[in-house]
Amino acid sequence: MSNVELNSVSESALSARCAARKLATLSEAQRQEIFSALANRLWNQRAEILKANARDCELLLIELKAGRTSQALFDRLQTSERGVSDMVAKVHAVAQLPDPIGKTLAITELDDNLTLRKVSCPLGVIGVVFESRPDVIPQVGALCLKSGNAVLLKGGKEATHTNELLVHIWRQVLAEFDDELVDVVSLLHTRHEVTEMLELSGLIDLIVPRGSKDFVTYVAAHSSIPVLGNAEGVCHIYVDQAANLEKAWDVSFDAKTNYPAACNAVETLLVHEEIAPKFLPEMIKRFHDARVAVRGCERTRTFSTANNVEETTDADWATEYSDLIIAVKVVTSFDEAVAHIDRHGSHHTEAIITEDPSTAQRFMELIDAAGVFHNASTRFADGFRYGLGAELGISTSKLHARGPVGLEGLTTYKYQLFGDGHTVSEYQARRRSKGAK
Amino acid sequence: MSNVELNSVSESALSARCAARKLATLSEAQRQEIFSALANRLWNQRAEILKANARDCELLLIELKAGRTSQALFDRLQTSERGVSDMVAKVHAVAQLPDPIGKTLAITELDDNLTLRKVSCPLGVIGVVFESRPDVIPQVGALCLKSGNAVLLKGGKEATHTNELLVHIWRQVLAEFDDELVDVVSLLHTRHEVTEMLELSGLIDLIVPRGSKDFVTYVAAHSSIPVLGNAEGVCHIYVDQAANLEKAWDVSFDAKTNYPAACNAVETLLVHEEIAPKFLPEMIKRFHDARVAVRGCERTRTFSTANNVEETTDADWATEYSDLIIAVKVVTSFDEAVAHIDRHGSHHTEAIITEDPSTAQRFMELIDAAGVFHNASTRFADGFRYGLGAELGISTSKLHARGPVGLEGLTTYKYQLFGDGHTVSEYQARRRSKGAK
Repeated sequence: MSNVELNSVSESALSARCAARKLATLSEAQRQEIFSALANRLWNQRAEILKANARDCELLLIELKAGRTSQALFDRLQTSERGVSDMVAKVHAVAQLPDPIGKTLAITELDDNLTLRKVSCPLGVIGVVFESRPDVIPQVGALCLKSGNAVLLKGGKEATHTNELLVHIWRQVLAEFDDELVDVVSLLHTRHEVTEMLELSGLIDLIVPRGSKDFVTYVAAHSSIPVLGNAEGVCHIYVDQAANLEKAWDVSFDAKTNYPAACNAVETLLVHEEIAPKFLPEMIKRFHDARVAVRGCERTRTFSTANNVEETTDADWATEYSDLIIAVKVVTSFDEAVAHIDRHGSHHTEAIITEDPSTAQRFMELIDAAGVFHNASTRFADGFRYGLGAELGISTSKLHARGPVGLEGLTTYKYQLFGDGHTVSEYQARRRSKGAK
Repeated sequence: MSNVELNSVSESALSARCAARKLATLSEAQRQEIFSALANRLWNQRAEILKANARDCELLLIELKAGRTSQALFDRLQTSERGVSDMVAKVHAVAQLPDPIGKTLAITELDDNLTLRKVSCPLGVIGVVFESRPDVIPQVGALCLKSGNAVLLKGGKEATHTNELLVHIWRQVLAEFDDELVDVVSLLHTRHEVTEMLELSGLIDLIVPRGSKDFVTYVAAHSSIPVLGNAEGVCHIYVDQAANLEKAWDVSFDAKTNYPAACNAVETLLVHEEIAPKFLPEMIKRFHDARVAVRGCERTRTFSTANNVEETTDADWATEYSDLIIAVKVVTSFDEAVAHIDRHGSHHTEAIITEDPSTAQRFMELIDAAGVFHNASTRFADGFRYGLGAELGISTSKLHARGPVGLEGLTTYKYQLFGDGHTVSEYQARRRSKGAK
């Protein structure tokens, strides 16, 4: 790893490009060999991994006790033998996905001996910036290896020892297979290096920021490199007048309480006025029983039997609470709900609860979001649940990859044209006698 | 059109969004009706179109005579009855393409009554900034109508009268079909409005700049909205040692001389030293006969019989001449050619001339460009030649759309999840008995 420390980020990126080019020449069987070696070595070195992780945890515990960090961050950092075994399982899982590279996506015979193929290929070099969770390195590294990309990783400083060892293991495995592959995975060490990386628009093909809204927004604003990620998830559930009450209660409850810190948790309930008197009193009660703070518009508050619904302000409609808080609004129509989502939503995931199929269909078509759900919890917006095998992140961008992104988001395509000395002038000259030589 | 002049750009963009949402609810048959009405009206108003165009041409002619503009710009501006008939033909051609919207791209049964569909859908609002050519409006307008998008157009001021009339025709046709559709096509009038548009990242989904390298670079640097375009095309042809000489001469000649101002014209020839003595003298002669200025490295110049090859400087390798000039370099190996392209290419289109299929295959895999061609002219990199029906532009970006971009580049996808009250908690609880209710 020492050469990474000595070199500038642009040199690391250049080395990564060369390594990616080498990687592109490997066969699927050769990449499988690397996957096996990696899984074995991760497991064989689990004692060292746990030791490095314990050292990081010790240091973070001091911060935690001093009130300078959160229990949540500490929990995400700490791993165990079970954690390492999960890492190994994830490496195997990615290895077993279908090869995303070299697939012929389209083929067109333009003329005799002139064939156009649209073929999937790697993006090149990916930059991933993430916080604590040590399982990011094996998973992202595996996704990049599978898709023929090199990766520059920058983790949080609280996980320094764990991350350095994990990247070291990766690089050892790569070096043993072929010296020229070692820079397929590299680690950056400082924030300054991240700033430098964001400027390398000719050398880095994609930046994946995983972290707070502020961080993702910062990255998008400071780089002309394409960014894959989501700044926020202000997800809505619209409870239509034709909703089944049980489904509406269950889905809304799940979407808020299953994992409130996730970006696919619901933040705002929109309730049609026709169903509000039947739906809201019980819903508010269920939320309160689960310690969810309910905030509501004026009409919502009239349905609270215990007078325990705080009044919403305009700011509530645009807020991702990431916590056990929910905002509730009574709407007079389907159109009002759609307009509210269009104005305040973050194009992440939006759900409708209704038994009316034509209303559902209109919602699915009109709402501009990566995920539009009918009678299902917003929490399903997840690469694992979508069956993608592994998830790089969730994208709220409309271009390239949208929603949960797996291997496909790490690929692009190129057009390969196979001719036999074909010129355009000759083609133009004979275009009136198409097909004639 | 008066409301566009009165409103700010963000208001135009908001109106465009509403119109796009309305457009999304039309059936394919309804959109076909609009296409027919548009084609008819364009043809019926050809006299007015030619009159408006004549007025623009008159004004530009003054500039041309004063030496303040180029003949090329004037030629691109001027249209004719044949030109209007081509516009009509293009509108019909786009109308007849397969519907790109609402296609199910993938479908996954996640569980009983839990179905995930990946469905193609419009991007939303597109901003297109272009120079003179009046046929851009009917073609881009048709592409947007077909793909369910609204568009804000800004043409060059030299085409003011032509563009205003064309957009007016569009808006009349849309208004006659449905008042709420009128803002599917709008015209911006000033440079200041373009600057304003580049800042509307929440309201505009894609910017398509068509113009000079400086302009495209400016747009990309000044907007956080995704940009589809190519700043430049520094395309190479590598003449391998195993090249067929006739093919190498013909393809190189075509790629340089067929239309030198195009971004897919070749700028640099890389010639393997083994074949240089046979290839270069005749190639240089053919270029000179066609008034192509040849610049060469030291070794290239030794193959010029007439001593008429100027010496290249480092700047030549990075220059898009867009003119009858070509740079030639003798290389000692395939690897040197690949490294040169990797360093100086613009990821647009790169070609190899060789009879060795394994060398060709390595080139097709190693070169990182939107188009990699074997024994064919770089001039084939074009939406029409690729069979895309109509071209929005050529993209050198790796994300979203790459190479010549047709209708597909104006679409994204959303995940539609159809459930029956499914919650993630319930799913987590029963995950060990997969499939059991």
